[in-house]
Amino acid sequence: MKEKRFIEQCAEILEKVITNKPLVHHITNYVTVNDCANITLSIGASPIMADAIEEVNEIVSISSSLVLNIGTLNNRTVQSMIASGKKANEINIPVIFDPVGAGASSFRNSTTKDILEKVKIDILRGNISEIRYIAGLSSNTKGVDASESDKNNPSKEAAEIAYSLAKKQKCIVAITGAIDVISDGTRTFYVENGHPALSNITGTGCMCSSLVGSFNGAAPDLPLQATVAALLCMGIAGEIAYEKAGKLGNGSFRSAIIDAISNMNTNILLERSRFYEK
Amino acid sequence: MKEKRFIEQCAEILEKVITNKPLVHHITNYVTVNDCANITLSIGASPIMADAIEEVNEIVSISSSLVLNIGTLNNRTVQSMIASGKKANEINIPVIFDPVGAGASSFRNSTTKDILEKVKIDILRGNISEIRYIAGLSSNTKGVDASESDKNNPSKEAAEIAYSLAKKQKCIVAITGAIDVISDGTRTFYVENGHPALSNITGTGCMCSSLVGSFNGAAPDLPLQATVAALLCMGIAGEIAYEKAGKLGNGSFRSAIIDAISNMNTNILLERSRFYEK
Amino acid sequence: MKEKRFIEQCAEILEKVITNKPLVHHITNYVTVNDCANITLSIGASPIMADAIEEVNEIVSISSSLVLNIGTLNNRTVQSMIASGKKANEINIPVIFDPVGAGASSFRNSTTKDILEKVKIDILRGNISEIRYIAGLSSNTKGVDASESDKNNPSKEAAEIAYSLAKKQKCIVAITGAIDVISDGTRTFYVENGHPALSNITGTGCMCSSLVGSFNGAAPDLPLQATVAALLCMGIAGEIAYEKAGKLGNGSFRSAIIDAISNMNTNILLERSRFYEK
Repeated sequence: MKEKRFIEQCAEILEKVITNKPLVHHITNYVTVNDCANITLSIGASPIMADAIEEVNEIVSISSSLVLNIGTLNNRTVQSMIASGKKANEINIPVIFDPVGAGASSFRNSTTKDILEKVKIDILRGNISEIRYIAGLSSNTKGVDASESDKNNPSKEAAEIAYSLAKKQKCIVAITGAIDVISDGTRTFYVENGHPALSNITGTGCMCSSLVGSFNGAAPDLPLQATVAALLCMGIAGEIAYEKAGKLGNGSFRSAIIDAISNMNTNILLERSRFYEK
Repeated sequence: MKEKRFIEQCAEILEKVITNKPLVHHITNYVTVNDCANITLSIGASPIMADAIEEVNEIVSISSSLVLNIGTLNNRTVQSMIASGKKANEINIPVIFDPVGAGASSFRNSTTKDILEKVKIDILRGNISEIRYIAGLSSNTKGVDASESDKNNPSKEAAEIAYSLAKKQKCIVAITGAIDVISDGTRTFYVENGHPALSNITGTGCMCSSLVGSFNGAAPDLPLQATVAALLCMGIAGEIAYEKAGKLGNGSFRSAIIDAISNMNTNILLERSRFYEK
Repeated sequence: MKEKRFIEQCAEILEKVITNKPLVHHITNYVTVNDCANITLSIGASPIMADAIEEVNEIVSISSSLVLNIGTLNNRTVQSMIASGKKANEINIPVIFDPVGAGASSFRNSTTKDILEKVKIDILRGNISEIRYIAGLSSNTKGVDASESDKNNPSKEAAEIAYSLAKKQKCIVAITGAIDVISDGTRTFYVENGHPALSNITGTGCMCSSLVGSFNGAAPDLPLQATVAALLCMGIAGEIAYEKAGKLGNGSFRSAIIDAISNMNTNILLERSRFYEK
């Protein structure tokens, strides 16, 4: 009943998010930042977005976790990401890195390399194209969405990539897609919850990273459980939202995702989660 | 029947917003800027967001009010805030200052100080943690949301802080919370409308400031009435939105807030407003 | 049956957007960027937002079209707009320019001039105030929304302006308003679809430009058809959305616009489009 204990821990972390309201510092893109703030609030945590080099150290100091997202990176904010990441390492709070569009430009690639070298990342979350790129494999990144050919990769291959990269980077690697895979380099989990329509809404990946930040901020001692819990919640919310509003269209579906996250609780998590270790 | 005259003036200002469509210049954060634009349009005013130092003077010159919000401040935009504020003072249009996260970092603190020294602020709107910090009182700012301990402050204490700070800064101070308090250093008003769920949606404070900008842009001669009217509308919209959609979740509730603002009229304002002077 | 063939081509382009998922590179404002990303995804294309000078050339290189929008321009992003525009010209992908607020400040004016001089624009889309300014006519730009007096211009006058400017700039000019006019300097089309309530939602103009980018990305060989198709879809979506949710308020209406775009198909386009050439 190892899996039963695991999902109970996930549920306990969800409770902790709601009780402790961890402050999640984001340096993120301006496309989906509002959704990131709202999903963080909706799961019960507290978001703060601050990217000025003058203040990131202090903001990190009052935060429970740090989310770095290079979706609309620029020279100014990259400096702030690295500074804040170092500070987060120093005070030992979890750092989540979302390498949006890694593989799509030299600037994204060198920034990704820079961040991974200078900051100890605790959780790396991306789509299969981005993670393939980071793993040094041939990638088909076209923009910020996973390429079709990469998406067709079987989850088994994704799991192998996550596992190896996690081992190499000494962090948790989470690859989200039709089936999410999460590995810490020792154990590897598959999350089956989710809905294909999530890829029709901008920022569902970024929102996922915000949830990963929220759960890890609440339970920095259980990063694997916290990360799996975050992806389960996102996947379940996608399913519930699609049931309620998917057929109405993307605007309603998007709103319903936030609804579902704000209504998330341990009962829903325990009842609906579909995942396994392998 | 002093209060009857006051609320009638509030209603007249709402009419003026709709008739005159004041242009409200915002230099604000990228997290909630879309909501600020939509709420400004929804109440009947016209938003413009422009933060380049090269143009802020000209944009101020065609505007009816200016909203400064330091939610995601950086060195570039702070310069634009100060320049635009000075220009607004010169041409005598109302300046609204929303000191998001004041108390959370030295950069926010020094920027707040700088703006208050260099720009004559007409309306200062913040949460209790931010205003306590500005008033020189011990604050428990943790991020951009009011801290729990600060929120438990009775509104009477908030009113005293608003009153003293308004007197000192020679401006209107509006502290929003469970009960909003608004003081111009002579008169102090309490607004009871609102709903606790508003704090679950990012940017409801920023949106409040946009409404304060809209109302003051329409009635710069009646800043106290304009500010109270704005907070009444936001509070009433929160109540109506919660009745309609609160139980569906945060996504639906957020959308319903904008719905309620776009349906606001003098009848609703006169019927539902709950406020008093003390 | 010239018009029958034209609308069939529009429908074929819509199919192509859905099949080919063109990558649409945006350098745009932070107010409405999320809506631009979501509408691009909802019509079936793929958005990427990237504005760092270090990467815009590479991002353009993998894109099918480029949308430049100066809604919240600054010195840094203007450089990126020009660089990306030149690169787009070089590799021969369509460039859409949305001159938000042209006429409202010298900075917007000089930037507009600069972009038009240094980049070969394929489609210029704006409101009547902005396009009047660019055409060298007296404009009443007040902020980013078309002025009331400009809006009252009959569409015939707008058509003449579009026609002459298109001839002069050697591009397609699309003026959106109560009736949209689109001219390539030879042929001029009027699109009657739409709803006045669209002007109550921030960014419906920007979203229009994103659709123009999506359709032109899918059919760079038929820019007139692609541009008319985009405006038809936006107009029809506005009508459908208003029927469904317009009376609920702006929040619901906004969400319903995205719903309607995500449900758009060739049947709806063929049945509901109302346009004519003249």
